[in-house]
Amino acid sequence: MNKSVNKGIGYAGIGEKIDDFLLIKEATRGVASNGKPFLTLILRDATGEIEAKLWDATKEDEEIFVPEQIVRLNGEINQFRGKLQLKIMAIQPAQPTDDVHVSQFVEKAPVHRDVLMEKLTEAIFEMKNPAMQRIVRAFIKKYQEPLLTYPAASKNHHEYVSGLAHHIVSMLALAKEFHTLYPEINKDLLYSGIILHDLGKLKELSGVVTTTYTIEGKLLGHIPMMVEEIGRVANELQIEGEEVLILKHLVLSHHGKAEWGSPKPPLVREAEILHLIDLIDAKMNMLNRALTKVKPGEFTERLFAMDNRQFYKPVFDE
Amino acid sequence: MNKSVNKGIGYAGIGEKIDDFLLIKEATRGVASNGKPFLTLILRDATGEIEAKLWDATKEDEEIFVPEQIVRLNGEINQFRGKLQLKIMAIQPAQPTDDVHVSQFVEKAPVHRDVLMEKLTEAIFEMKNPAMQRIVRAFIKKYQEPLLTYPAASKNHHEYVSGLAHHIVSMLALAKEFHTLYPEINKDLLYSGIILHDLGKLKELSGVVTTTYTIEGKLLGHIPMMVEEIGRVANELQIEGEEVLILKHLVLSHHGKAEWGSPKPPLVREAEILHLIDLIDAKMNMLNRALTKVKPGEFTERLFAMDNRQFYKPVFDE
Amino acid sequence: MNKSVNKGIGYAGIGEKIDDFLLIKEATRGVASNGKPFLTLILRDATGEIEAKLWDATKEDEEIFVPEQIVRLNGEINQFRGKLQLKIMAIQPAQPTDDVHVSQFVEKAPVHRDVLMEKLTEAIFEMKNPAMQRIVRAFIKKYQEPLLTYPAASKNHHEYVSGLAHHIVSMLALAKEFHTLYPEINKDLLYSGIILHDLGKLKELSGVVTTTYTIEGKLLGHIPMMVEEIGRVANELQIEGEEVLILKHLVLSHHGKAEWGSPKPPLVREAEILHLIDLIDAKMNMLNRALTKVKPGEFTERLFAMDNRQFYKPVFDE
Amino acid sequence: MNKSVNKGIGYAGIGEKIDDFLLIKEATRGVASNGKPFLTLILRDATGEIEAKLWDATKEDEEIFVPEQIVRLNGEINQFRGKLQLKIMAIQPAQPTDDVHVSQFVEKAPVHRDVLMEKLTEAIFEMKNPAMQRIVRAFIKKYQEPLLTYPAASKNHHEYVSGLAHHIVSMLALAKEFHTLYPEINKDLLYSGIILHDLGKLKELSGVVTTTYTIEGKLLGHIPMMVEEIGRVANELQIEGEEVLILKHLVLSHHGKAEWGSPKPPLVREAEILHLIDLIDAKMNMLNRALTKVKPGEFTERLFAMDNRQFYKPVFDE
Amino acid sequence: MNKSVNKGIGYAGIGEKIDDFLLIKEATRGVASNGKPFLTLILRDATGEIEAKLWDATKEDEEIFVPEQIVRLNGEINQFRGKLQLKIMAIQPAQPTDDVHVSQFVEKAPVHRDVLMEKLTEAIFEMKNPAMQRIVRAFIKKYQEPLLTYPAASKNHHEYVSGLAHHIVSMLALAKEFHTLYPEINKDLLYSGIILHDLGKLKELSGVVTTTYTIEGKLLGHIPMMVEEIGRVANELQIEGEEVLILKHLVLSHHGKAEWGSPKPPLVREAEILHLIDLIDAKMNMLNRALTKVKPGEFTERLFAMDNRQFYKPVFDE
Amino acid sequence: MNKSVNKGIGYAGIGEKIDDFLLIKEATRGVASNGKPFLTLILRDATGEIEAKLWDATKEDEEIFVPEQIVRLNGEINQFRGKLQLKIMAIQPAQPTDDVHVSQFVEKAPVHRDVLMEKLTEAIFEMKNPAMQRIVRAFIKKYQEPLLTYPAASKNHHEYVSGLAHHIVSMLALAKEFHTLYPEINKDLLYSGIILHDLGKLKELSGVVTTTYTIEGKLLGHIPMMVEEIGRVANELQIEGEEVLILKHLVLSHHGKAEWGSPKPPLVREAEILHLIDLIDAKMNMLNRALTKVKPGEFTERLFAMDNRQFYKPVFDE
Repeated sequence: MNKSVNKGIGYAGIGEKIDDFLLIKEATRGVASNGKPFLTLILRDATGEIEAKLWDATKEDEEIFVPEQIVRLNGEINQFRGKLQLKIMAIQPAQPTDDVHVSQFVEKAPVHRDVLMEKLTEAIFEMKNPAMQRIVRAFIKKYQEPLLTYPAASKNHHEYVSGLAHHIVSMLALAKEFHTLYPEINKDLLYSGIILHDLGKLKELSGVVTTTYTIEGKLLGHIPMMVEEIGRVANELQIEGEEVLILKHLVLSHHGKAEWGSPKPPLVREAEILHLIDLIDAKMNMLNRALTKVKPGEFTERLFAMDNRQFYKPVFDE
Repeated sequence: MNKSVNKGIGYAGIGEKIDDFLLIKEATRGVASNGKPFLTLILRDATGEIEAKLWDATKEDEEIFVPEQIVRLNGEINQFRGKLQLKIMAIQPAQPTDDVHVSQFVEKAPVHRDVLMEKLTEAIFEMKNPAMQRIVRAFIKKYQEPLLTYPAASKNHHEYVSGLAHHIVSMLALAKEFHTLYPEINKDLLYSGIILHDLGKLKELSGVVTTTYTIEGKLLGHIPMMVEEIGRVANELQIEGEEVLILKHLVLSHHGKAEWGSPKPPLVREAEILHLIDLIDAKMNMLNRALTKVKPGEFTERLFAMDNRQFYKPVFDE
Repeated sequence: MNKSVNKGIGYAGIGEKIDDFLLIKEATRGVASNGKPFLTLILRDATGEIEAKLWDATKEDEEIFVPEQIVRLNGEINQFRGKLQLKIMAIQPAQPTDDVHVSQFVEKAPVHRDVLMEKLTEAIFEMKNPAMQRIVRAFIKKYQEPLLTYPAASKNHHEYVSGLAHHIVSMLALAKEFHTLYPEINKDLLYSGIILHDLGKLKELSGVVTTTYTIEGKLLGHIPMMVEEIGRVANELQIEGEEVLILKHLVLSHHGKAEWGSPKPPLVREAEILHLIDLIDAKMNMLNRALTKVKPGEFTERLFAMDNRQFYKPVFDE
Repeated sequence: MNKSVNKGIGYAGIGEKIDDFLLIKEATRGVASNGKPFLTLILRDATGEIEAKLWDATKEDEEIFVPEQIVRLNGEINQFRGKLQLKIMAIQPAQPTDDVHVSQFVEKAPVHRDVLMEKLTEAIFEMKNPAMQRIVRAFIKKYQEPLLTYPAASKNHHEYVSGLAHHIVSMLALAKEFHTLYPEINKDLLYSGIILHDLGKLKELSGVVTTTYTIEGKLLGHIPMMVEEIGRVANELQIEGEEVLILKHLVLSHHGKAEWGSPKPPLVREAEILHLIDLIDAKMNMLNRALTKVKPGEFTERLFAMDNRQFYKPVFDE
Repeated sequence: MNKSVNKGIGYAGIGEKIDDFLLIKEATRGVASNGKPFLTLILRDATGEIEAKLWDATKEDEEIFVPEQIVRLNGEINQFRGKLQLKIMAIQPAQPTDDVHVSQFVEKAPVHRDVLMEKLTEAIFEMKNPAMQRIVRAFIKKYQEPLLTYPAASKNHHEYVSGLAHHIVSMLALAKEFHTLYPEINKDLLYSGIILHDLGKLKELSGVVTTTYTIEGKLLGHIPMMVEEIGRVANELQIEGEEVLILKHLVLSHHGKAEWGSPKPPLVREAEILHLIDLIDAKMNMLNRALTKVKPGEFTERLFAMDNRQFYKPVFDE
Repeated sequence: MNKSVNKGIGYAGIGEKIDDFLLIKEATRGVASNGKPFLTLILRDATGEIEAKLWDATKEDEEIFVPEQIVRLNGEINQFRGKLQLKIMAIQPAQPTDDVHVSQFVEKAPVHRDVLMEKLTEAIFEMKNPAMQRIVRAFIKKYQEPLLTYPAASKNHHEYVSGLAHHIVSMLALAKEFHTLYPEINKDLLYSGIILHDLGKLKELSGVVTTTYTIEGKLLGHIPMMVEEIGRVANELQIEGEEVLILKHLVLSHHGKAEWGSPKPPLVREAEILHLIDLIDAKMNMLNRALTKVKPGEFTERLFAMDNRQFYKPVFDE
């Protein structure tokens, strides 16, 4: 296949020709002024997304061109009301023989999942407290596959494939350094808290590609779901003792305040640190990604999850 | 025994003689200006409490006169800095033969525990949804004894023996009427939510007499503890289906807002109603008890849990 | 007349023919790209509303097709930008001989005004305190007609014909049950408060059909206006005594907090209960109407006046 | 009589002898460590107040030495726990022949009541709008006596005899200048608003000497009470027209925000200015009085009603 | 030239012909549905602004028609989606010989800059404290030109040419009267504070015509920039003593609260007054300008900087 | 000298004899019930503090025993109202020959000042940007002595001798690790920001031993004072360029939010990180010191600067 967009949809410019595979992220039906139905498609690859109109859509089109379907598309980049749009010349669903997978069309963590798994394993191996080590190991074993593919959130930070594992591994690296600088920290407890704190998201979020919230996620949230599951796993492993209570507390309190979803604030040293490390890594992820998009002397777009601030990149930062 | 205080400590006046059994609620050691140790005792019966000083306290005294100890006390009511105080003439620990029990010295719900149990049983009997009915029944069976003795809170409302059961039974009566007026309400769900919503307090609070918070209560709180236990009980009963999720949601959301300890606000009709009924019954309990203490034309003392308001009793309310 | 829309505009689907009377709710003038003026009409019947464009509108059209005018309309349901639109084939103002009234085109309370009046009368009849009874009776007599037609609010809850009376009567039913469960309540006071609390809205709101705020309503609000009028009516009836003061207080404080428009919070038991009952009935009205529009397993639209929450209808709620 | 304290109690120092008339502001009964009752008296004259203990108080003493009683007192200034105290040598109630009046023992406005009355009269005379003028005149006539004696508040600002009139007259002076600088202002409206805005306090506060809140004041507050009375007076004068509504709005909104007691914020130009002028004069009164008590280079005590700030008096302010 | 718009763009009506000079405030490129580029221009004169489309724009057009360019334009007022639009018949850049300047196309203060300068000079002349007088004089000398042209803000109040000087001069007039009514005020300090308080805006804002924020303005804000500059100027003038500290404090605290940008609240009498006078003059400027646009009996548009309120103009205000 | 208290005042128990040098931290005059004056002294050494009464104090005593005076004291530890008190047998001011210095009686950082200075020097040596390096070097040179002795705050965190330098050095260590984990960080900028951020406290706080706020500190605060000084130093060094602006911004924004004293929030990556690192090190300092005082299974006292939380020390933390 003659791939016209070498760098990906996220980098395409006006007038460029497209002949490539793309993933349908959203598909909405409309009726044109001539009374005929059409489809508004949001198409994406691993670098970004673009809107396209499929005019005079038939009933069959509506059934074929649905979210998560991969399509082969021939077209050209236009502009409409200041935004880029993809004019469709030809479109057809991908065939099994095309050997394309949904995972090729989504953004991924900058670190490979095998490396992430290795780092996780190392951290668990370092732990000395058997109760915590066994609980954490049980969770990793149970959730290994989704843990290595899920995003850390549906938007804002680490919202890409393997985002959750990437977030955990970055936090573990921070924790290691914190422990060196403040040796009073119980490293086992902090490591366990970091690995477990967001695993409830594997049930709160619907999946990797078009991430929404599950009904359970909407009605309970990942924090109480995870507190419950720590209890269940500890029970199955017949682990008793304060470690279980403290691990639950770390998960419960890691949002820091009641109004942010933690019914109890951090009341154990490592709970406070877990909250801080979580905050730091999420902020650094948002900030660094936003700043790579602007040149020195410019401001970033508004960052919603950072109080809507626009950050400045100094001119000496070249 | 010649009981001098007929109506109880809560009604005693200056100059009155006391010769009665009392319960030690608190005992604190001090050193007098003459260098000798003394004990400050808070003594109570079912009607109220009073402070007393035990001067020149020996080591033995310090070991004997401790919280939850019942004592036979001979003394007189004085006044010190505007507050009543009990001057001790003679004091000795109660003997097994005295046949007095801690339960006689604490405030109790105005309804007998057997009646409360009966009302609870009736409500469960009325339920038609088998999943909810079985879960609720399992909890009542497991916690029957503490449920019938615990207060609903350590202070503010229903803070007396059987307060929790009294609160639940009043709420069930309200629920019944709400269901009549708004027949869209799922009565089984609302009944279940009412019975379960505060059972986590049986683990959050330390006990009936001198109620404090357990470590588990401080680090997790009764809401997440109860959500977890609903999951465990449903598991043991092999009950699946949305009922379990929705029951957890009702418990989780019953404080109404994140800042009041519910990570999710009510998102199911009966969850909203549960929250409202809980609020109403707590407020009515505080309000009615405060207003019985004042005469028409007067204001109550400040009610901390009602935004520190002082309520007025109209003169025509006679 | 051959009524094509059997169930009403609120239930019409694409392609359906319309030949019916409709009420103009709004009419806005625009100029088309061809330079000719047109009218955008919002048309409604008792079940819902729809937009329509009247192209090439003449000066006469602009004078005839104005808000609150009933029209006979022949047309067809189309779709434009995802919303239904009514394509006008023929339109003409209703004639006196058509025997149609504005009241037929607006939503109404689910209970007939005669029944509402009867319930009100019953409640007043039950009252024993002559001062309160006479004041309430005087108000009902003075405002009977608007009270039985006005909505309780311009949006959010009970925003339909007879909404105010419907709200009052529901609240009276709740009050009756509250009094049974908490006999300390002064029923006469609570009944009076319920009947009077929102009567100021009859002056704050402009009318029944296209409800806006009057200048007096904007500058004073219904609460101070009603407090003043209670004073005037009591004066006319030569009623003195604390009842008048307490009734004013109930009206003044029924929004519960200063930031919600009550300069004083409830400071009398029945004032607190009035506030709670008002809240409950408004919430139940919003909640029940939103939930009837969705199927089990779905969430409602966002409810603005309930903190923008979306409520879930459990699947077992069938 | 040999008046030992020339400048008044507010200026007395340790060791000074006292032989003068003082007013009892508060009297509280206590029981000493020797078991005998005593009275704690707060005594005041026009310059300040001081505490004194009357030991071994008899039943008669308790009946004689009550608030608002003037006493002839012989004693000496001591210090107790860092605060001045008055040691009583001899105390007896003032006699009719002593020719002393409560009004001599309270702080007064720095401007004489006749001057205040004159300024008020002038302002009313300047007004051209007959409706406003007649309403304001009627109020002044009705409330002349209390208006010229009441404080503007029970504490914080203008909390002295004639404080309310002093506050009004200062505000009128400000209004006159504002009108010169911003001629768009309707002077009659602003003058009327200033004169009327706080007259409700004459019913909200209990009196001049030991100012507390009336029951009506607690349950309604001066704002709604005054809105009602404007309506009544206008009615009696048979004045109609928008002036009445706007005057009510000015009174209603003069606290500026709902959370400060105004159900509607200022929505008319003069309402906004009235609110600002009220704020300014209250602040200047507090600030100037606090700063006269400190030397250049010092900070004042914390001013509660000015966000608890301590103000600095520059050294060049000599 | 035949000026068709006599009163200016701000007063033009539908159908009116335009043949006049206008200033381009904004120019944005778009692509039409026929694929050809066009420019959306915002054009203004001293009375207001209007949108226009320049269809089939060439590369040259894009380079010529840029912000701050003055153009000679021939066209007609149309309406599009309820807003006025200017249909361009002919457009060309103004020539040097046309003798038109940007300053003619922007709103100006209602008082001439020479008068403003004179009032400033007078105020400084009145000052007696040499330290303050010399500092203020140095600033006026250094910034005379921008001070007399800059707006006081980029929007909301005094957002016109000479707006800053107009604001200062109005505040000085208020200060003079305040000083008469409250003679405790240190007039020199208040005058100095008023003149200096917003001079930092000359560096915070980019300029007079299309006012935006400078990078320095965004990262530091005018308050800390001005505090620093007072220090520098005092240093250059070799002025020491508390005057410098207090002047810095007045500038630092003039926004009144930390959340409004003042790290310290006013802690000196004149600082508090400066804050109040600043507030009053800004509010009066917004309020008076909004009210001149409406008729008696109407409400203004929502005023964003006044809590989004709509103000009412009484009918007797004619 | 025979030092009876081996571990220091902070560890002394009831009945212990004291014969040692102590520093007077506070001295307050009182008058006893027998009419004689006495002094209440707060005495301290490097481990803690204790109260003592000096009865029958003469005029000379009042002049000798003042804050910051070192005394030789012979006495015994007693208890009064539950708190330890030191009974004075003999007290006399220290003599020059005693060779005792104030610095021996105050708490010190756990790291020696020479080590702190060395770490600072290393960090500056690592910097590559000459503008930042020169500015930072100039500040260190100018303030070396106070920087190495001042506390970081008057209470809450690092409130001991060399606390500021200790805080800075800990933050530099954190910064080094952050830079390794997030290499996008400009290390020079972050190092500079850390070293400079709190130097304004050297002027805001009065000194090392009995730390209060200076007048300049109260009226301006350390942040604006330091922004000004960075400008002055850069000027003296003739350094221009964006580095100066960005350094000012880092100092200005390091409290994170306007309500916490930063008129601008962090708008540069390193400003955000500086704020986070400052927060972390302050919290860890408070938390670790509070937790060393309690045993496993206990809660700490309430930590005011951490939202008044009490932290739990797990039992497995032994």
